[in-house]
Amino acid sequence: MAVYNAPLNDMRFILTDVFKAHEFWQNNENLAHVDMETVDMILEEMAKLSKNVLLPINRSGDEEGATFEGNGVVTTPTGFKEAYKQYAESGWVGLSGNSEYGGQGFPKMVTMLTEEMVFTANQSFALYPNLTVGATLCLNAAASEEQKQTYLEKMYNGEWAGTMCLTEPHAGTDLGIIKTKAVPNDDGSYDISGTKIFITGGEHDLTDNIIHLVLAKTPNAPEGSKGISLFVVPKFLVNEDGSLGERNTLAVGSIEHKMGIKASATCVMNFDNAKGWMVGAENTGLSSMFIMMNYERVTMGLQGLGGSELAYQNAALYANDRGQGRSDTQIQSPEKPADAIIHHADVRRMLLNAKANTEASRCFAMYVAKNLDAEKFSTDPEAAQAAAARVALLTPVAKAFLTDKALEATIDCQQVFGGHGYIREWGMEQIVRDTRIAQIYEGTNGIQALDLLGRKVAKNNGKYVTHFLGEIRDFVNNMQADHGIKQATLDAADTIEELTTTVLSNIGARKSEINGCAVDYMHAFGYLAYSYMFALMVEAANGKEGDFYTNKAKLADYFVGRILPRIDAHAQMVKAGSDPMMNFELNYFDVPAS
Amino acid sequence: MAVYNAPLNDMRFILTDVFKAHEFWQNNENLAHVDMETVDMILEEMAKLSKNVLLPINRSGDEEGATFEGNGVVTTPTGFKEAYKQYAESGWVGLSGNSEYGGQGFPKMVTMLTEEMVFTANQSFALYPNLTVGATLCLNAAASEEQKQTYLEKMYNGEWAGTMCLTEPHAGTDLGIIKTKAVPNDDGSYDISGTKIFITGGEHDLTDNIIHLVLAKTPNAPEGSKGISLFVVPKFLVNEDGSLGERNTLAVGSIEHKMGIKASATCVMNFDNAKGWMVGAENTGLSSMFIMMNYERVTMGLQGLGGSELAYQNAALYANDRGQGRSDTQIQSPEKPADAIIHHADVRRMLLNAKANTEASRCFAMYVAKNLDAEKFSTDPEAAQAAAARVALLTPVAKAFLTDKALEATIDCQQVFGGHGYIREWGMEQIVRDTRIAQIYEGTNGIQALDLLGRKVAKNNGKYVTHFLGEIRDFVNNMQADHGIKQATLDAADTIEELTTTVLSNIGARKSEINGCAVDYMHAFGYLAYSYMFALMVEAANGKEGDFYTNKAKLADYFVGRILPRIDAHAQMVKAGSDPMMNFELNYFDVPAS
Repeated sequence: MAVYNAPLNDMRFILTDVFKAHEFWQNNENLAHVDMETVDMILEEMAKLSKNVLLPINRSGDEEGATFEGNGVVTTPTGFKEAYKQYAESGWVGLSGNSEYGGQGFPKMVTMLTEEMVFTANQSFALYPNLTVGATLCLNAAASEEQKQTYLEKMYNGEWAGTMCLTEPHAGTDLGIIKTKAVPNDDGSYDISGTKIFITGGEHDLTDNIIHLVLAKTPNAPEGSKGISLFVVPKFLVNEDGSLGERNTLAVGSIEHKMGIKASATCVMNFDNAKGWMVGAENTGLSSMFIMMNYERVTMGLQGLGGSELAYQNAALYANDRGQGRSDTQIQSPEKPADAIIHHADVRRMLLNAKANTEASRCFAMYVAKNLDAEKFSTDPEAAQAAAARVALLTPVAKAFLTDKALEATIDCQQVFGGHGYIREWGMEQIVRDTRIAQIYEGTNGIQALDLLGRKVAKNNGKYVTHFLGEIRDFVNNMQADHGIKQATLDAADTIEELTTTVLSNIGARKSEINGCAVDYMHAFGYLAYSYMFALMVEAANGKEGDFYTNKAKLADYFVGRILPRIDAHAQMVKAGSDPMMNFELNYFDVPAS
Repeated sequence: MAVYNAPLNDMRFILTDVFKAHEFWQNNENLAHVDMETVDMILEEMAKLSKNVLLPINRSGDEEGATFEGNGVVTTPTGFKEAYKQYAESGWVGLSGNSEYGGQGFPKMVTMLTEEMVFTANQSFALYPNLTVGATLCLNAAASEEQKQTYLEKMYNGEWAGTMCLTEPHAGTDLGIIKTKAVPNDDGSYDISGTKIFITGGEHDLTDNIIHLVLAKTPNAPEGSKGISLFVVPKFLVNEDGSLGERNTLAVGSIEHKMGIKASATCVMNFDNAKGWMVGAENTGLSSMFIMMNYERVTMGLQGLGGSELAYQNAALYANDRGQGRSDTQIQSPEKPADAIIHHADVRRMLLNAKANTEASRCFAMYVAKNLDAEKFSTDPEAAQAAAARVALLTPVAKAFLTDKALEATIDCQQVFGGHGYIREWGMEQIVRDTRIAQIYEGTNGIQALDLLGRKVAKNNGKYVTHFLGEIRDFVNNMQADHGIKQATLDAADTIEELTTTVLSNIGARKSEINGCAVDYMHAFGYLAYSYMFALMVEAANGKEGDFYTNKAKLADYFVGRILPRIDAHAQMVKAGSDPMMNFELNYFDVPAS
């Protein structure tokens, strides 16, 4: 039903014209092995796989859902097993993996594009390999050599899957209060006991083994988040020769029935003295987890981008086909009883909201990916440090702003379909339901905003922001292109500078100021980031011939006139501060008496 | 699972303190029979019915859904039949009905509150009697005396249900191109043939008969919307003595599988030379339908309000219960591992967005209801005409703005639950799915916005708007209360005046200007309307003692500081006009080649 053709031209434009990936790779010895020809082939292969293998099982996967029969077995929907096999055997799971352990060593600038395609075609499917990749990132960064030898290769080649076991029934955002226990054994292993919830891919039928990364507390660990350790807890223990040994004492208790991503098994996992091994040093579990968090959070932004892209393509197709009423300018199809609705400015408004979102968010994700790669691969410590600071600042924006805007885009595109958008058969409502989760998991968007304004802005007194604003102003002031995006971006930069100063000056007097202003600050910041991205795209397209390039400037016009003004509303709301929330007594929020 | 206690105090505040319903009724002989004591009893009874009968079958109704077994039979979910029987036998369907035919003659100011409660407790259930009420409004206004005698009493007492059969597969927004035919018979009846889709309650097991109101074209009718007639087409023909006669040749073909309101049967209806009778004069079908449209559209606003209210109550309860992290100000529950999340300003932000929406939208719906009642019941023709103009202007806002803000509110409240908000069991995601439809049906919100800016503003050169702005400024300038809402409302009024002038001056040069600006104009207008409502509420609460009244001013503070600034963004976007959409060539919206 749904269509999806990967926007390879837009992707190549961002990769090469905007961010000059080839130069970046050539100038960096750790990435010199990456060549554009191979990358092109990779993108084309994934475009085919997404369209021909993953998209066809997207609707059916939603209808069927992952199922749990109560005996510890979770079954993925029809076709998922075969699709996963093809995906794994083609090497996609290990695309970014460490080449010392069988990975292919491609940078995030490449894998973000393949990840986007997988999320566009099938959000539920995407999560299975995605969690494995997250677990390998964590193991690669924090595990012992022996642990890496044991797990990484089979995870990279997709034979085994991985999970992240963080949340417990009473502990989500606040991981400091988890209860799962890890009691040491004499042989160096630990007995892990506790219940974890919302575990994506905690159990399924896609792989022979599932490697759980579990946060737990050792006996006498310090209270709160400083007393959390990380453990690797495989479903099947691994023998010395790498073959599968006995079944570990952990099992899925049930799976959740959810609003969307129904083909993704979201599991309650019970660990009952399950055998595990500590990863990294005791009580450093959270920081080990956070090594992969920056990647995961950007990837959640890509999930939003994928939802937005799929919604856009299908809404544009429908708007070109559906006849209803007549164009305001002139009759377009006199031979038909009505003109296609694409001629209505309001329909274009909805489509362009989505289109501007996909292009800006893809560009922004690539910008963050380039910084992630610079942080990871750069041989210049100063450059790596600067990139790390940029990643720290922008990761919460890449997660929260991209997914917030993506939900809006999917809703706009659903609206293009009128009543048909509400019918399951057409597939649009599934995109809305699937995309919604990306605002919630991997740290809610409210938490991301707090991370931005609290940790990344206020804690260093705005230093990271100041650097980012400096870069933006430098770039815009040196642009060759003559376009409204220049002044718009400079104004947006001024807005963020002013807001930052305002919030920093208020936090002494108002203890809830960061909490109360974070989300609106994050949105204002996001609009500045998008504006910068449009400036980068306009400049990259400047002087080049053809509709493809001139349309980049037109989309930037749309952004400036019809989207960016929202930044002023968010700025005003930040300035209004937290008092309007905190002035209420607690009992104001009581539910009316029955 | 979910809780719902009708906010009777808020309702009474709006009814009596803000809009002084008792005075309005006493001063109007056609409404002098309405007394506040009876109304109070009505509200309390509906509060109980909603909570005890309709809410308990809301989740189960979503899980089970309406079912179609392929033999023309549609079954409502478990408990719906019994609940409907109780609802009908208590006289709720005919509450607003014409008392000459067995209705109870209550004004919209009362029924809007009972409708809100039904929609809050169970959106799917609400639609069954709601469509019947719409059909009776239409029959009461346009049908012959004989038709009224035949149908109204049994529809008012709930023995028979009603539907509206407008949409066809190729004709939704554009009803001018419908194909359903009505061929006259010698006995004055017509043979109706065609397929209608998206027919809410087209078939079900709640009533003995279903009275379909069907739009169709007679032979040789003029093309387009001027050639549409309205017909009453009962499922079972009615004998002269009022008993049921033979089965008419119409049947449900299938029911839709939808994103939400799953317990509401959305039917494909096939009419195969079904016997029908014309209602009103030939070719006046659309205008007959529009008689009830103003009521229906306000009622869709109430559906949004209901979703917002249910989401708010449950999110507030959850936020008071769920412990996570610590308050920014001081530890609140030292005996527990975490404080309730209600202490976080960002959680309050989400709750207050919903709370401000429910209070403002309820107040606005009451304002429109009062005008609907003045139009219908006033003995002073001038007052009736002024009220009719106000209704015409505000109905699209009551439908579109209330439902757009409602979806945002339900999403905010779902977000309060974190991951649990995404799980079906908790019920929050259902509210989002159910509420979403209200933005789409009864004329999409884009169409409502076009109605506002095109027909209600541009066509009379802003006359209705000017009157409305005059009323607002008069009121605000005479307010006793000293509150920021005064200046905020005056500023908002200036914004709308300026936008109206701007759009009117641009439509000559830009043919797509109304289409391209309508939605943002509607949103800006909606914020002005809400601001005026808060001004009304602040003034009504002014000088009265107790938290209930001082909190009205605090909520208005929240609105001014943290919601109303959005009006400026929409104003800027209106000023940017339609060129940013229309500058693209048509082929820009082609899907990328595979």
